[in-house]
Amino acid sequence: MQLGLSVSDSDVSSFTPLVVLELADDTKAEAITWLLNRIRDKQQNGGAELLVNQLLFPAQDDQKPNPNVFVVGSTLQRLLNGAEDVGLFKEFQDGTMRGFTYANRESFNDFNEGFLSDAECQYIIKHELDTLRAKNEEHVPGYPKLKLYPGKSVVRRLQSKGVLNQYFPLHNKEDLKRLSFSWYKKFKLSFQPLDDIRHYFGEGLALYFGFLEYFTFALVPMALIGIPYYLFDWEDYDKYVLFAVFNLVWSTVFLEVWKRCSATLAYGWGTLSRKKAFEEPRAGFHGALGFNPVTGREEPVYPSSKRQLRIYLVSVPFVLLCLYLSFYVMMVYFDMEFWAINIYNEDPSIATSILLFVPSIIYAVVIEIMNLLYRFAAEFLTDWENHRLESSFQNHLVLKVLVFNFVNCFASLFYIAFVMQDMVLLRQSLATLLITSQILNQVMEAFLPYWLQRRRNKKVHKRMRRLMGDKELPLLGQVKLETEMNTYLGTFDDYLEQFLLFGYVSLFSCVYPLAAVLVVLNNITEVYSDAFKMCHVFKRPFSEPATNIGVWQLAFETMSIIAVVTNCALIGLSPQVKAYFPESDTQLILIVVAIEHVLLAFKFILAFVIPDVPKHIQVNLAKLEFDSLEAFKKRVSTHLEGVSGGLNATLSKHYSTKRIILQ
Amino acid sequence: MQLGLSVSDSDVSSFTPLVVLELADDTKAEAITWLLNRIRDKQQNGGAELLVNQLLFPAQDDQKPNPNVFVVGSTLQRLLNGAEDVGLFKEFQDGTMRGFTYANRESFNDFNEGFLSDAECQYIIKHELDTLRAKNEEHVPGYPKLKLYPGKSVVRRLQSKGVLNQYFPLHNKEDLKRLSFSWYKKFKLSFQPLDDIRHYFGEGLALYFGFLEYFTFALVPMALIGIPYYLFDWEDYDKYVLFAVFNLVWSTVFLEVWKRCSATLAYGWGTLSRKKAFEEPRAGFHGALGFNPVTGREEPVYPSSKRQLRIYLVSVPFVLLCLYLSFYVMMVYFDMEFWAINIYNEDPSIATSILLFVPSIIYAVVIEIMNLLYRFAAEFLTDWENHRLESSFQNHLVLKVLVFNFVNCFASLFYIAFVMQDMVLLRQSLATLLITSQILNQVMEAFLPYWLQRRRNKKVHKRMRRLMGDKELPLLGQVKLETEMNTYLGTFDDYLEQFLLFGYVSLFSCVYPLAAVLVVLNNITEVYSDAFKMCHVFKRPFSEPATNIGVWQLAFETMSIIAVVTNCALIGLSPQVKAYFPESDTQLILIVVAIEHVLLAFKFILAFVIPDVPKHIQVNLAKLEFDSLEAFKKRVSTHLEGVSGGLNATLSKHYSTKRIILQ
Repeated sequence: MQLGLSVSDSDVSSFTPLVVLELADDTKAEAITWLLNRIRDKQQNGGAELLVNQLLFPAQDDQKPNPNVFVVGSTLQRLLNGAEDVGLFKEFQDGTMRGFTYANRESFNDFNEGFLSDAECQYIIKHELDTLRAKNEEHVPGYPKLKLYPGKSVVRRLQSKGVLNQYFPLHNKEDLKRLSFSWYKKFKLSFQPLDDIRHYFGEGLALYFGFLEYFTFALVPMALIGIPYYLFDWEDYDKYVLFAVFNLVWSTVFLEVWKRCSATLAYGWGTLSRKKAFEEPRAGFHGALGFNPVTGREEPVYPSSKRQLRIYLVSVPFVLLCLYLSFYVMMVYFDMEFWAINIYNEDPSIATSILLFVPSIIYAVVIEIMNLLYRFAAEFLTDWENHRLESSFQNHLVLKVLVFNFVNCFASLFYIAFVMQDMVLLRQSLATLLITSQILNQVMEAFLPYWLQRRRNKKVHKRMRRLMGDKELPLLGQVKLETEMNTYLGTFDDYLEQFLLFGYVSLFSCVYPLAAVLVVLNNITEVYSDAFKMCHVFKRPFSEPATNIGVWQLAFETMSIIAVVTNCALIGLSPQVKAYFPESDTQLILIVVAIEHVLLAFKFILAFVIPDVPKHIQVNLAKLEFDSLEAFKKRVSTHLEGVSGGLNATLSKHYSTKRIILQ
Repeated sequence: MQLGLSVSDSDVSSFTPLVVLELADDTKAEAITWLLNRIRDKQQNGGAELLVNQLLFPAQDDQKPNPNVFVVGSTLQRLLNGAEDVGLFKEFQDGTMRGFTYANRESFNDFNEGFLSDAECQYIIKHELDTLRAKNEEHVPGYPKLKLYPGKSVVRRLQSKGVLNQYFPLHNKEDLKRLSFSWYKKFKLSFQPLDDIRHYFGEGLALYFGFLEYFTFALVPMALIGIPYYLFDWEDYDKYVLFAVFNLVWSTVFLEVWKRCSATLAYGWGTLSRKKAFEEPRAGFHGALGFNPVTGREEPVYPSSKRQLRIYLVSVPFVLLCLYLSFYVMMVYFDMEFWAINIYNEDPSIATSILLFVPSIIYAVVIEIMNLLYRFAAEFLTDWENHRLESSFQNHLVLKVLVFNFVNCFASLFYIAFVMQDMVLLRQSLATLLITSQILNQVMEAFLPYWLQRRRNKKVHKRMRRLMGDKELPLLGQVKLETEMNTYLGTFDDYLEQFLLFGYVSLFSCVYPLAAVLVVLNNITEVYSDAFKMCHVFKRPFSEPATNIGVWQLAFETMSIIAVVTNCALIGLSPQVKAYFPESDTQLILIVVAIEHVLLAFKFILAFVIPDVPKHIQVNLAKLEFDSLEAFKKRVSTHLEGVSGGLNATLSKHYSTKRIILQ
């Protein structure tokens, strides 16, 4: 049977399932009936007008399956209307990107073939589910305590109260096979298929992989310069200064050019000019019922003074305590380091020279563990701060995590470089930290989850095969498998890792030029392991429209400013530069400070002068705006012709008070 | 006769004249007829649909009057439609500011009484005249060389070719009397009537006066602290350091708070959420005919590579040459200074102690003259660079002028402070520069033009009286007078003056705490002289909608960053601070640099944390956006109901490839 031949056939039993909805297995029947009705109901009646069906898993010997698993799909008509609803941008026939409207659908390129990608369809369905709002219901049927009020998102309410376990988009096996082949299964050097990634996973993730690739390529020149330093053991600080200067220029240009790249990508994907949708409160946000000052609707409000109190009286002290702890651990590390050096000095042998690396390795492992623990604590705290919007939640989380991770990872290096001024130890410590954290990350991030996943998969496969024989796993099996996969928690940790790597490279790589080489190697494997984990380890995530890498751009820029200061200071400390000013340190410091100021000023001017959006895209955007202005004017003038010439007599008085007869 | 009782009576001979249009006195009759017809023509036919009439001045004994002076007015209906056209924001009945639409006119507050101010009417008329576009005319009738092409603004073309001498809005004598009384004629201390200023002169000018007032008030605490320093001759550097720290915090907070103030003002005036109109090319822009990539229309284009060449090969070297000249003059000044000091040292008497100030006074006068000359050269050069948009022209002009003025005014002070390290000379030089430039400015800016104006006015008055007897000067006399007034060239020079004053205060006032007092005194008289010059010396300017002080905000912020560096350095140079580090300068410098970095970081964080727009205005803006989103959704869903349920069969194929029969 063909999919959705008319709008009204929402009770068809066959459609392409796109999204899985899993309710708690003890959900009351009346709540389920009500929810399904609301999902199926026509838009005019405030429903989502989607197709939804129950999946009944055959009972198994060892455990009762959850009966409340549903798949959601949609008619094409509904998807197209939804695309207009969410403000999707598509390529227009003149090659520009325009907001899709149903009325002009035929004027868009490729309208007749694969117009909406799977990810887009799923995004639209998610949006429609999320904006399914309570009407007159006072509470969820069967749950008198689960209060509702008009305008509240039903799905978010159910989710925050634990009635809705999860909802996630289904993988498309065929597309996934094709994507994973072009992405990481062929072993020749090539760019990543960013457009395909975007098609399958959405813009947010594609931008991450774009950034990863860009960052890696940008590091290649630095790595190439770094190799001879290592091979020939260039210890003369002439080249060391050169490398620092290169570092400076590189880190500024790198970030500015990325902005342009990301604008180009986002324009091509139609997210650049897309207007931001009105942001809904987070699912976990709670508070006393009040009135939203913007919409005028009744909804929970939480006084921002209370939130400020929580932030300043609990979160900030907690972060400071953690920083103190981190410093304490650092001091313990230095004690261990001195102890190892003493042993080596007393008895220099191979065994003791290996021992020299042990403290750094232990410290690196401890750092990673602390980062991990802190990450959970930060998430818990930020959640407890009860931010109304997801964006504000994210900003506070990122800030907390960045400050701690920065101190935790780099404090010891700063201490060695500027207090101890021991460049040999700095190099050794940097190398150990970098390598250890890379190995740990790759294991924790991809291989461990994969291994756990495989064990689970095998069990599920075996069970399914026992029930169904040897035929291809149909929908039931796929849903079963994917329901039990881990949820991908967003690009946060991936960006964080890149941020720290960027720090290692830009802050200190002039001391240890091999750092760039290590980061390049790491990122090449990172692409593969990240690609693999997205395709096979985690549930498919909902696509997230993104224009840029958001707060991370700011984080990287801040790091590059710190890098200018650090590199200047390292140059000032180098014996070779010091040799130019044998009689007085004062002059040297003044010159270094002056150069640093000039470089910082230059950096800001450069950031100001390089346009964030390439010229040709600016022209296209201006064109779009011009067209919409013209359309608006046409509307006004049509409207004008319809207006009768009658004038409000009392009104005209004001303008004729100054009646003057000419001549 | 009542004004504009129907839309069609554009040939009435009585209406409120709002704008004067002066054509060259040798303009060909056919061109005049054509232009008047185009202005009077209906909008449907591409006309401006305005009322226009000729003013015939009686012939005078000594000279023939220009016969081609016209007054332009409008019906109320046309003005209201124009208000929607230009996107005017007005107070809605719920107290928020909303874009005016003719259809909802009755829902706006005060619609029945004084809805559009004079300045707004004149702005609308200017907009309608500026957007009067050529249709199929190939050239201006009677001028075969004055080519036109479809879409080109007629008025700008006539203006750039010298056929249209000028067009300007008329003063409203009654309103002007009321405004000038409440503004500067009563001598009690009170806030300026910013709303009235905005009503009469528009938002751009009102924001300037708002800034002037804000800046002056912000300086009062600094002035209050500065007075005891001067009175008690506090030379201990303890307090001097305190003052510098105060300076630092003040200059940051000052600018951040101003952003919020200006947002509040702009919101109240309805310019904050107003969309920027599509910018027309400048009147003077020229180039070969080509296609505009945005609008697709034929219009002159000028390759940006050519402009870049002009900028980098001519303008930049010219600016550098001027800077060199400025340094040369500075060196001459120092020679003079040493010569004066030598004379004083040889024979210390009252006469020679006065002589000590002579070099600084001469230098201050020379600086002012150089600034003035450079200002003209910069304007000429920027014009020659042939920028397409007024905004880009302004940015290049501001950049050129700021760089030169900064160096010209402050180079000698920096030299004295950091190279000569002579704080006594610095104080003396600062005081002389500041006082001399203030006196010169006030004279040049207000009193000289006023004196010239009065001489001219008297002549005109006498002539008019001879012709008309002793009756009140009617329209003819008013137009005659105002046509001959000087044109106000915009707020550029006024902001520039405040920028330099801000520099004197924030950079060096810790050395000469009386600077703030002087600037406060200067600004109090500045308010009066600026108010006076706006009301009586210059032609009334067209109102200019403005959201903020534009590029000046950036200029002031840059200055405040330089101020942090300068103040830190001054603190580091102070003998008292030096006394803390008797054995080594190195440590002192390192600490000063560290403090400076912390302060700069703190400044950026502060600028980031303080929201630019106050909370309650953010809520109002969000409300507005929400309402327009809701209205849009309503439109979409109405549209949806009209869509038939039929589906494109070929389309549905793509979505049903994965047909799966459930269960």
